[in-house]
Order: sequence, then C-alpha cells, then structure tokens
Amino acid sequence: MADTAPYETLLSHRARTATSSVIRDLLRHANRPEVISLAGGIPAPALFPLERIGRASEVALQEVGATAAQYGLTEGVEELRELFAADASVDRPVHPGQILVTTGSQQAIDLVGRVLVDPGDQIVVDDPAYLGALQALRGHGPDITGISVDDKGLDTHELETKLRAGLRPKLAYTNPNFQNPTGATMSRQRREHLARLANEFGFVIIEDDPYDALRFAGEAQPSIATFTERVIRIRTVSKTLAPGLRVAWMISPQPIHDALVIAKQAVDLHTSTYTQHTALRLLRDRQWYAEHEKTLSPWYLERRDALSAGLHEAFGDDLEFNTPEGGMFLWAQLKNSMVDTTALLDVALENGVAFVPGAAFAVERKLPNHLRLSFATASPPELHEAAHRLQAAVRRLAADIQD
Amino acid sequence: MADTAPYETLLSHRARTATSSVIRDLLRHANRPEVISLAGGIPAPALFPLERIGRASEVALQEVGATAAQYGLTEGVEELRELFAADASVDRPVHPGQILVTTGSQQAIDLVGRVLVDPGDQIVVDDPAYLGALQALRGHGPDITGISVDDKGLDTHELETKLRAGLRPKLAYTNPNFQNPTGATMSRQRREHLARLANEFGFVIIEDDPYDALRFAGEAQPSIATFTERVIRIRTVSKTLAPGLRVAWMISPQPIHDALVIAKQAVDLHTSTYTQHTALRLLRDRQWYAEHEKTLSPWYLERRDALSAGLHEAFGDDLEFNTPEGGMFLWAQLKNSMVDTTALLDVALENGVAFVPGAAFAVERKLPNHLRLSFATASPPELHEAAHRLQAAVRRLAADIQD
Repeated sequence: MADTAPYETLLSHRARTATSSVIRDLLRHANRPEVISLAGGIPAPALFPLERIGRASEVALQEVGATAAQYGLTEGVEELRELFAADASVDRPVHPGQILVTTGSQQAIDLVGRVLVDPGDQIVVDDPAYLGALQALRGHGPDITGISVDDKGLDTHELETKLRAGLRPKLAYTNPNFQNPTGATMSRQRREHLARLANEFGFVIIEDDPYDALRFAGEAQPSIATFTERVIRIRTVSKTLAPGLRVAWMISPQPIHDALVIAKQAVDLHTSTYTQHTALRLLRDRQWYAEHEKTLSPWYLERRDALSAGLHEAFGDDLEFNTPEGGMFLWAQLKNSMVDTTALLDVALENGVAFVPGAAFAVERKLPNHLRLSFATASPPELHEAAHRLQAAVRRLAADIQD
Repeated sequence: MADTAPYETLLSHRARTATSSVIRDLLRHANRPEVISLAGGIPAPALFPLERIGRASEVALQEVGATAAQYGLTEGVEELRELFAADASVDRPVHPGQILVTTGSQQAIDLVGRVLVDPGDQIVVDDPAYLGALQALRGHGPDITGISVDDKGLDTHELETKLRAGLRPKLAYTNPNFQNPTGATMSRQRREHLARLANEFGFVIIEDDPYDALRFAGEAQPSIATFTERVIRIRTVSKTLAPGLRVAWMISPQPIHDALVIAKQAVDLHTSTYTQHTALRLLRDRQWYAEHEKTLSPWYLERRDALSAGLHEAFGDDLEFNTPEGGMFLWAQLKNSMVDTTALLDVALENGVAFVPGAAFAVERKLPNHLRLSFATASPPELHEAAHRLQAAVRRLAADIQD
C-alpha cells in the first residue's frame, strides 16, 4: 500500500496554524498531587450540587420521558429559553426567540466568530484576554487588535482613539465582570461608553459574562446590553451549577441570532437535551437555586482573602496584585525583578505550585512579569502555602539569574 | 442612537450563504398530531432505556463524584475512549489515543471539514447524501462532487473513472450501512475498492456509521477501516442509547486526530462529562447492553415490513422501493408518474402524512420522483395507513396535473 499523500499535507490552513492551549498543556503537570494549582480556570467542585443534579435528571425523565433524551430543537429546550429570557439580567425585555442554548460558552464564542468573521476582518479584544476566546476567534482568521484592560476593565478611551484613527472592527470581545485573567470589573461609565462606540461605529459587542453570580464585594454593574442592542450576551451554568453539563446561552440581535441558529445546526445539531432538561429542573426551583447561589461567593471570597494574605506575607512589596470583587482570579505582577514568569513556571512546578504566566493571555502587550493566580479550588491553608512556594521559586530563579 | 451598520452587513460570507435544513423546516409541520410522519430521521423513543439512563447518571455521580460534572479533557473520558477502542468493529487494533469523543456525529463531520477542507478543495460525497453531512461540509467551502449511490452503496467504479480523469479529492464521505437516505449497504467488494482508491489517490474516507447496530437481515460487512488506515470512522450512541446524550466518537489516523483535538478544543472545549459518564456506565454493563441491543433491530424490522406491505398494497407497481437490511429508511421512486415529490409534500401533509422528497438529498443528480420514507417511529398500523394516505396524495396531485 503506497500512501501517496502524508496526512499532514491534507490538513487545512486553519488546522496547520491552530495551536493547542498553553494552559491545557500545562495542566497535565499541574495535576500531580504534590502540586498546589493556582493555574486552572475551573470552579470549585465542592460547590457542585451533585445530588440535586442526579435527582434533576431523574425528575426530567419522569416528567417528559423520552423527550429528555431525544433529538431536540437547535435553539434549545423551549422552557429553558423562557427561563433564560426572564433572567437575562438586562434592563430591558429579552424575548426567548433571541436566545440560543449552546454547548458551553466556548461554543457560543466560536459560533459568533463563524457568523460574523471572514478572514482578515478586524476585531478587538480585551488585552490580556481569556485564552479560550482567543482560540475560538482566531480560528476564523480575523485581524485582532488588543485593547488594554486596566482596573476599570477594557479601556474604552484607547478603543475610541483607535476607532477615530480608522479602526473598523466587526466585533469587540470583552469579559466585563471579574475578567479572566485580570479579575477587573468594567466600570459603568466604560460600559456606557463602549455601548455608544458600538452604536456610532456599527460593531457588535460580545459580552462574555460567566462569573456574574460570583460577586462577593462591591456593587453589581448593569449589563452592557442595558445600554445598546448591539450586544451578544453570553452566560453559562458552568460556574453556578456545573461545567460538565455544557449548558450556556447567548442573547443576540435577531438577524444575528437567526444566523447563529443555522450555524449551530451545522456544527452539532443542538445541545444535549438531557443536560438542558437537567439544568432546567435545577434552575426553575427558584427557592433552592437562590439558596444555592448564596453559597458560591462566600467560598471564593474566603479564598481570595487567604491567597491575598499569603502573598502579602510571602512577598511584601515584591509582588503587586489587585483585589477583585468577584470571580476566581488574582492578577499579579512581580516588582523589581528580572524574573520572567514563563521561565518561573518550571521552577514553580518543581517547588509544588502552578500558575499561568501572563504571556499566555497577551494579545499585543508583552506581560513578562505577570501571573494569573486562581484561588478557586485550593483550600485556604493550601493557598497560604502556595504563596510561600511561589515566593521561594522566584527567589531561586532570581538567584540563578544573578549567578 | 444611529445604528450605522445593519446587522446583516456584518454577517460573514459563510453565514450569508448557509441555509437551514429543509428537513428541519419541514418537521415543524410534521409535528401536528394528525400527521403520520415518515419524515424524521429520529430513532424510536420507545427503545430508549430511560430508567437505566437515569440510574447510570446517579451511579456516575456516586462513583466519580464531581468529576462527572467538572470540566474534562478535550479527547473525552479516558475509560470511555478505552471502551470505544475495544469496540471499534474494525479488524485491526485501535488505540484509545486515536479516539475523540464528540458532541454527536454532526460535530465529528464538522470537525473533519474544519481540519481538512480549505475553501475550493475537492471532496466527494454519496449522491444522494445525508443532509446533515452536506450542511457540515458545505460550511467549509469545498468543491463537492457527488458519486452515485446504488443498491450496493457508493459506486466506486464511477469514482475511479473520475479519479483517473483528474479528480483529486481530499476526502470522500460515505454512509456505508443502511445509508441515509437510500437504505443501501455498501458491498464488501466496493469497500475494498474504495480503500484501494484512497491509498492510491491519497484521500481520506469518512466512514459515517450510525446505524450498524440496527441490522435485521443479511450479513454484516466489515468496516472500510479494515482495508485501509486512511479512514475516519464515526460512530454514535444516538441510535443505540439516546441521541439527547450527544455522545459520538471518531477513530482517526494519528496526525488527523491530533488536529481534530485542537479544533475541538476551540469549538466546545469537550463533550459533556456528565453524558459521557452516563453513557460509559450503560455501555460497560456488557450483559445488559447485549440484551438491550438485541431489542433494537426487531423493532425496526417489524416496521420495515409493515411499511413495505402497506406500500405494495396501496401502490402496486406504481412505486418502486428497496428492502434495506437495517436502519430506518426506505428509498422509493414513483413510476409512470408526472408527480414531483417536492410538490407532492404539501398535498401529502394535507392528507396527514409526511416524508422527505428526494431533492432534499440530491447532490448532482436530480431526484424529482424519489421519497425517503422513515419507518422508525410510527406503529405498524400507522405505517400501513400512511402508505394509503401517501397513495391518495399521489392520486390527487396526478389528477390535478391532468386537469
């Protein structure tokens, strides 16, 4: 048998240029039991309502029988879409006909790329940005411009300057609450400003909002969709129920929604009816869900504080970091140091602590001294210990550099 | 607020050219209770092991806890991949490292398009072909050549002629067992021939095999992957357990597998760990599963026979149709008739019966007199009645044409 063409020559341009996630490759090492991981972007499994999930599946099968296991509509289970429309957290009416249930937020972002982005189209994204969004959007070949994220979120003044200078993006991707990776929350002024810019320049905003239920301090900010219709708002049950269900949803302007439905039909027909019916039964028990939701943010707050205290104690002034109002991440920067955090990672893993280097999230800016530190899954004593291990790794690497 | 760009102008080329499935739009009408549907491509819900599914989810949560609801590896749940590798129904060893669990077969086909097809690349497909595959593949902009399917499956002699004349496809998509829509099964000779052509001309075969467990007559044919490594073999639990789980899997040559994993990571991170762990617990109970599988084909055989008998009785020689050895579809052709089956559909729906016109599956050949008739979900008496309603619709339309 003569194989005339090696498989590699058959790969599409997209497949040849796609790269695996740094975080994903890293996580292989972070899974060793002796390593305390501040690397993962995964929610605390202790918060998953496991018994309730199992019971919800059973109830679904009893209530709707085979419908909970049969093929379903591409748009999603009708009752679930109604519930999501009623709970859109947008200060204007949202219609179930604007809601598409997706196989996780990742699919929602990919679908937006698919229906809005032709190769070479301009788009803007948070800089630094959520890696999964970069991967999904890059798959469609856009020309990406990063807009700096500071402690008030995406810098809309920087964006406006670039727009006035001629930038014409089709879409702007941002993570407005407790941003991944910086933990920053976009101010109300900036949300309004971004909405005005979208209206003036005719682009669409992807408001990817997975963490909004994880606020433990400060005041909730209105959805960007409150200020303009030019928003695709993405939400998920991954951080409130469990990510393994792969149930997220997006609210879109009607013509975009219609295109998204056709695209989704081609990529996976529909999201699991079984997990949709399971999620529906958990979410529509309003009393239970309200109680459950209340358990989430105290967990994360306790851990944010444990990690903050550990880092202060271990590093003093040698590490600068923020105090996020919610979510799962601290964003830290080494001060007065020659240490590159990508080089630091190997040493840190040897020292038994994992994190994600800032470079992994960089779009245009270089972030050689930054670290994303997740406080989501480790215990408070582990977080304390992790801070000290991290500091020891920095000290070790700094000594090596000086030698 | 001045919206400078209407949303439609923002849509990508792909979104502007994508069309919704005819079948999907049709099914809206077919769902009326007075309509007997021979249209859907859905398995019989009465065969879903609903109680077992619920119990399997519960057992999964008990056994592996939060792991069954947490984020998971893109490749799929390890134990499930091992099980799929052991049960690949290919006459050579398959390694779990070649297996990617997907969110249904539809995603598997889309992913192959994504990693192998650049716009303008040549591919070949069954003609007529499974509509969902056409939708998924068309999304990647290929130049599609249809190869006729007859009662021995894809006509590999026609393919060889086109290859010798210069056709250079990157891939060939086929549904070898009880093909959708024709019900045809590819002969062993043609499988070997197709494999030789793939080796000689360097293309890859997508062997989409959702129905292999639904054989009720004739002899099982070996997988095309038995004869060449240049095969991406797609299988699913949709027709054996339940489609709502959205669990399928594909076996690929290693370099293609590696590219598929990276592509899947970008499109939905991974398939639901919850439904994977549920499916795992059903499939690994070998004794129960063997008994369950035995219940499937008699159900479909009884219905094939009921529909065949009804059609013979109602149409006599005016309708020609095959006798598939498995699956869910009869492929029929009106003889001695001016009636176009697309025009027939409206009249048939008025008469209380739905089907899918051949034109919906046509790639290059026109199929104005063909019908796909699914016997999967109606009862034997309903199938008998449906045959008579269909004949009455043909008679009515033929009379209208003569008027």
